[in-house]
Amino acid sequence: MKTSIPSTMKAVVLTKNGAQPEVAIIPVPQPGKGEVLVKMAFSPINPSDLAFLKGGYGIQKPYPVVPGFEGSGTVVKAGNGVLPKLWLGKNVACAASPKLNGCWAEYMVTTAASCVPFSKKISMEQGSMLFVNPMTALAFFDLYRKTPNPSGKTRGIINTAAASALGQMIIRLGKQQNIPVISVVWREKQISLLKNTGAEFVLNSSDPDFDTELKKLAHRLNATVIFDAVGGEMSQKLLSAAPKSSSLFIYGRLSGDTCEILSGELIFTGNHIQGFWLTNWLHEQGMLKTLLNIRKIQSMINTELKTNIHLQFQPEDISEAIETYTGNMSKGKVLLRF
Amino acid sequence: MKTSIPSTMKAVVLTKNGAQPEVAIIPVPQPGKGEVLVKMAFSPINPSDLAFLKGGYGIQKPYPVVPGFEGSGTVVKAGNGVLPKLWLGKNVACAASPKLNGCWAEYMVTTAASCVPFSKKISMEQGSMLFVNPMTALAFFDLYRKTPNPSGKTRGIINTAAASALGQMIIRLGKQQNIPVISVVWREKQISLLKNTGAEFVLNSSDPDFDTELKKLAHRLNATVIFDAVGGEMSQKLLSAAPKSSSLFIYGRLSGDTCEILSGELIFTGNHIQGFWLTNWLHEQGMLKTLLNIRKIQSMINTELKTNIHLQFQPEDISEAIETYTGNMSKGKVLLRF
Repeated sequence: MKTSIPSTMKAVVLTKNGAQPEVAIIPVPQPGKGEVLVKMAFSPINPSDLAFLKGGYGIQKPYPVVPGFEGSGTVVKAGNGVLPKLWLGKNVACAASPKLNGCWAEYMVTTAASCVPFSKKISMEQGSMLFVNPMTALAFFDLYRKTPNPSGKTRGIINTAAASALGQMIIRLGKQQNIPVISVVWREKQISLLKNTGAEFVLNSSDPDFDTELKKLAHRLNATVIFDAVGGEMSQKLLSAAPKSSSLFIYGRLSGDTCEILSGELIFTGNHIQGFWLTNWLHEQGMLKTLLNIRKIQSMINTELKTNIHLQFQPEDISEAIETYTGNMSKGKVLLRF
Repeated sequence: MKTSIPSTMKAVVLTKNGAQPEVAIIPVPQPGKGEVLVKMAFSPINPSDLAFLKGGYGIQKPYPVVPGFEGSGTVVKAGNGVLPKLWLGKNVACAASPKLNGCWAEYMVTTAASCVPFSKKISMEQGSMLFVNPMTALAFFDLYRKTPNPSGKTRGIINTAAASALGQMIIRLGKQQNIPVISVVWREKQISLLKNTGAEFVLNSSDPDFDTELKKLAHRLNATVIFDAVGGEMSQKLLSAAPKSSSLFIYGRLSGDTCEILSGELIFTGNHIQGFWLTNWLHEQGMLKTLLNIRKIQSMINTELKTNIHLQFQPEDISEAIETYTGNMSKGKVLLRF
């Protein structure tokens, strides 16, 4: 396949920490050894992108920088190496390289190892969201299984910010594996949204009796594995509600940067607290397990790991796209279309 | 051996939550099945006793109650069972039963399984402190060994409130095992105190450049296993100073009840936070390991696990004893003598 590749392209660019992202015309990059050039089709806005835009993310790149951690597209040029040549001409899901510009551009160079060709049953839109959320959902169930369970009893999961794309995947995977999932949302209308998609246990943290209800439910379902994207006061609320010897994984900080943890409780309850970052988890898994996980994801991308798409935007409308996404996260993903 | 046992005794009694402990004359208890009556010799005041007096401890007992979690004495009466008969007449180190009155009395009933006869090389005074601190020190080195160490490099330990009896044991055990220990104290004079006892790395958290110095030292010594008795702001300071993938064990809350944890850091650093409570740890070990640990403790009670004794008090002077202990913790233990 031959495609004529222009010398410049449209890209969303962040010129400095905290600036508004804007569209600029910049040179199309060249793939080096082990790398490919992807003509981008779609790229979602994820919470991790929002954190990156604010400068508060685990990966920082020199400015000016193109944001966007994942997307889909077609490999139009290959650098040296077996894998790049193998991907040439294929439709791939791709993740940005930690050292290079990201996905929010007409073209992106990334390592061939960060690309996975996907089957024709998967649309380019769904293909653009193969990595971040589905992989995080698989990671959570992997952590669930690896968390020691001395009692041997079935344990439940608690997840917060549960109306998100990820939250919905966790509900579906829980059903599939007969693991009860308590979804914590913060708006009344999100309850019916989740119940309509099959969620059994949904609590609204804005309800006055939330603490009591969560405690009752968490004890009834032995919900000792907790995933929290909210932080702030929520983390301690979750720990106080959960049975003893629970494990709290903090993976976001929607309500601010500081978690207030009661050390008195922590000492006597045997609870554990740790952070979760997909990048660290993938690193621990290694290449082979990741490839197996990608396979698993492809087999479930139209069912358990499906993502609802709310709207699509052109790169020129990046500000509106971000606003639409942040104001209506539970309506579904916002995609950039290139 | 026959001893005449009176029907009443002097005991330190706490009549309600938060009250001052006072001396009262109460009946001498009778040992039931599997239990023994110990004529108490000595009992120390430990930080866990202070927490119990304030009502903020993992074990709560109905009032009125005799405090005191550990001590030494002579078994003068045995309930039914093999073990009680075996201990009769022996000098034992004893721990209070979680369901009965404690050690701060002329006589105590506890389970025979909570008593260990000790060799004649150990004084009654040292024998009264065989459990809490020495066992905690062994527990810390057990946790150190069980904390995953993917890099394989030698790791150091950070410990706070390090001028305590426990802090000094950790320093000595670290030396014995070639594990570098960073001791964090909060008063200048505690630095020389610890250096005189052989500590190599001591930092004063009241120093203006404490954060920077701790970070430098923690990275140099790869100090990724952290024991914190302080809480409050200290916990996050320790995590921010330590290398990535550190494990923080919170075992006290000298500076208050709330730890402010930065979730942003937690997510990306791969750090772990958990509480440590000796009671939970002993429960996990089981009886056999605990007996082996008690043996180990006896062999080191005059060296690595020695406790300095500051002063002895009569039970009548309990208020003065507590005051003396809380005001001068690093001078050594305060014992009650019966």
